Amino acid sequence: MTQQSSPRRVRLTSHASTTARFPVRWGASDPVARGPVIAGPPDTPGRNAIGAHHGGLSVYRAVAVAAGGLDAAHVPDLTDTAPTDVLGPFPGWTDPGALVALDPWGATVAADFEDLLAEGVRIQPTIAVTRSRLRLPEAEVAIALGTLEPDGDILMEDGSIAVTKAAIEPVWHLPGIADRFGVDVHALRRVLFEQTGGMFPELVTRPDLDVFLPPVGGTTVYIIGDPARLRPDVETGAKAAVTARVHDECNGSDVFGSDICTCRPYLIQAVHGCVRDAQAGGIGVVAYFRKEGRALGEVTKFLVYNARKRQVGGDIAAEYFNRTECVAGVQDARFQQLMPDVLVWLGIDRIARLISMSSEKYDAITGAGITVDERVEIPPESIPADAWVEIEAKRAAGYYSSREQADLSRTGRRMDP
Amino acid sequence: MTQQSSPRRVRLTSHASTTARFPVRWGASDPVARGPVIAGPPDTPGRNAIGAHHGGLSVYRAVAVAAGGLDAAHVPDLTDTAPTDVLGPFPGWTDPGALVALDPWGATVAADFEDLLAEGVRIQPTIAVTRSRLRLPEAEVAIALGTLEPDGDILMEDGSIAVTKAAIEPVWHLPGIADRFGVDVHALRRVLFEQTGGMFPELVTRPDLDVFLPPVGGTTVYIIGDPARLRPDVETGAKAAVTARVHDECNGSDVFGSDICTCRPYLIQAVHGCVRDAQAGGIGVVAYFRKEGRALGEVTKFLVYNARKRQVGGDIAAEYFNRTECVAGVQDARFQQLMPDVLVWLGIDRIARLISMSSEKYDAITGAGITVDERVEIPPESIPADAWVEIEAKRAAGYYSSREQADLSRTGRRMDP
Repeated sequence: MTQQSSPRRVRLTSHASTTARFPVRWGASDPVARGPVIAGPPDTPGRNAIGAHHGGLSVYRAVAVAAGGLDAAHVPDLTDTAPTDVLGPFPGWTDPGALVALDPWGATVAADFEDLLAEGVRIQPTIAVTRSRLRLPEAEVAIALGTLEPDGDILMEDGSIAVTKAAIEPVWHLPGIADRFGVDVHALRRVLFEQTGGMFPELVTRPDLDVFLPPVGGTTVYIIGDPARLRPDVETGAKAAVTARVHDECNGSDVFGSDICTCRPYLIQAVHGCVRDAQAGGIGVVAYFRKEGRALGEVTKFLVYNARKRQVGGDIAAEYFNRTECVAGVQDARFQQLMPDVLVWLGIDRIARLISMSSEKYDAITGAGITVDERVEIPPESIPADAWVEIEAKRAAGYYSSREQADLSRTGRRMDP
Repeated sequence: MTQQSSPRRVRLTSHASTTARFPVRWGASDPVARGPVIAGPPDTPGRNAIGAHHGGLSVYRAVAVAAGGLDAAHVPDLTDTAPTDVLGPFPGWTDPGALVALDPWGATVAADFEDLLAEGVRIQPTIAVTRSRLRLPEAEVAIALGTLEPDGDILMEDGSIAVTKAAIEPVWHLPGIADRFGVDVHALRRVLFEQTGGMFPELVTRPDLDVFLPPVGGTTVYIIGDPARLRPDVETGAKAAVTARVHDECNGSDVFGSDICTCRPYLIQAVHGCVRDAQAGGIGVVAYFRKEGRALGEVTKFLVYNARKRQVGGDIAAEYFNRTECVAGVQDARFQQLMPDVLVWLGIDRIARLISMSSEKYDAITGAGITVDERVEIPPESIPADAWVEIEAKRAAGYYSSREQADLSRTGRRMDP
């Protein structure tokens, strides 16, 4: 690598000496012992993590700096930003193998590292927790139909739903990520570097940096019911029954109601189920993961839609997964193995009702040591006519269902051009 | 930079010689003259672009390779994936300064470079175009109320809306991006490298590579009405009247109906407006940009929500923008200057009805040479009670509105804890 082409000397990578002040002790017993996670430009004082805060959005921040709208030296003023609700600490927070894809202490850096922030060390929250009200048109219809009933606490008369929500940016502990997938950490780091087009050479050159903030989307968790009920009751030790959905982003359905899949209908079913179960003394959790198109992206998804419609025999369930593999080389890149971290972060060790048919999600959740009492499928009346191809293909691949399996080669759909 | 720490020799960056075969001539008159855009691992034959396909999702693909689920050498099988509708070419496609943030020829690589793909050159589409039906609960309500009327072509009796939709991944021509912001391209490249935590050293070391696929989210365009009507009528030369909204992602509202902003209500107003105007002979375009939280991310957004609620005097319009600047260092990082590219790509030179009050969006669109006949504001009855703080703050900052400006220091909201 040469530097002559650059107008002035540029620091292409950091050196091991820079991390001496703030080593990260993943899984340590408290945030100070664990140490702050510090990412940023290569010359950031105390920097001890590869990658960038806000993932890919760091590109827009960089443009803002280049265009003169943002001072690169800006230190966030975190006054009044603390979480609205105390979440944790829970046992998994201090088990280095239980949480590998998020920083459990990421919401409270303003309090935990007040002295360092006052010194000007640029420590940023990777989690934010706030309260909100949701207005869903489906909830208004459900109230009119009598399938949801306002209680003035969780569901209001005007149809709004009270929630506590947390936005979580990914923070990967690379040795733990490698263990989760059963691969060598050096091999993982090399492939992460190579297959992303050479993003972050430090993945290869700085094996002493174990923490990586990857430019992938984060997770939002919606908690319906008092989050304090995630803890055992002080007197009885009993925990509230958890109703949960772990939902992977599908913008076309979640926002625009595309009728080729069940994503929004299932998501709404989960929100309504969480409301009812929270009203009955439980607590609801909906986690929303930014992994569009099975983490293969929307371009891949639309290419596959076209190939499915045009293949000989039309769009049938028997060919559902094959078409994705032809285009993308893999059926799915979501890696549910990392998904349970958010449940562990919330201290969930038992799910009374899991609103999901996915076998990958079920296996990942139970593999993380979380008991699942009941799996709740989407009822046939909620499945759009053109989404049966997907549902039957998934059931044949092992998805949970109480219904009889249909003939895949006969499950097709109306053809658009 | 040292390589000793790596288990075997790794190629940290590519060399200028690799691009000799496929130079990119941005703005050339046809796709073959322009040349294919080829990104990928540093040793990808013919590689001529920095960055990665599918942006940040390349990280998940890398994990798939590391875990053994994806063959790194997989060449996409693009059989049957071609666009359902021919879009373009339009005049802006061959004007190097008019399109700088997407590859206009990105949808047709399978046809344009059939011979190279057969040779095994790994050229990937950056755009995919398909047809779909949308089921929106709000549209069903509107049909029941008689404010939308099914016609069996655009809006069906069952409430579904026929659309053509395109998913677009960002492809940045760095000299054009620099020009758009009025900054020196070398300075831009250096800041892009530094402020992303050292992502892609080639931004600095390979000034010969002008094309960059950044790990930011893409855009989805929904076209309501026959896309052929984006072209001038063959006989009269007249173009159909365009109704358009350029919408920036707000997951909390768009999916979950958060009542603190107007995002989903305004988006739905736009879809309904597009349906009505397409039924009247026009054409509707809704572009959806993945720029969560003004491109500052959802963690920043939730931190700001807390600071707004807790500040002295409560959440008032007069302090709306200040709170974001305290936390993030900048009020907004969306850079509407790049947004009009998608309109130019669709050949739009005049918008009859722009469903947006944003002055930044209006200025960017008209600055790109697109005439705007009418700006359509959100009606007061669509504004959630707690979203008036945002609306009044934006109006005071120059957003379009026909209504009288409220007193910002008196526009507050109900306080959640």
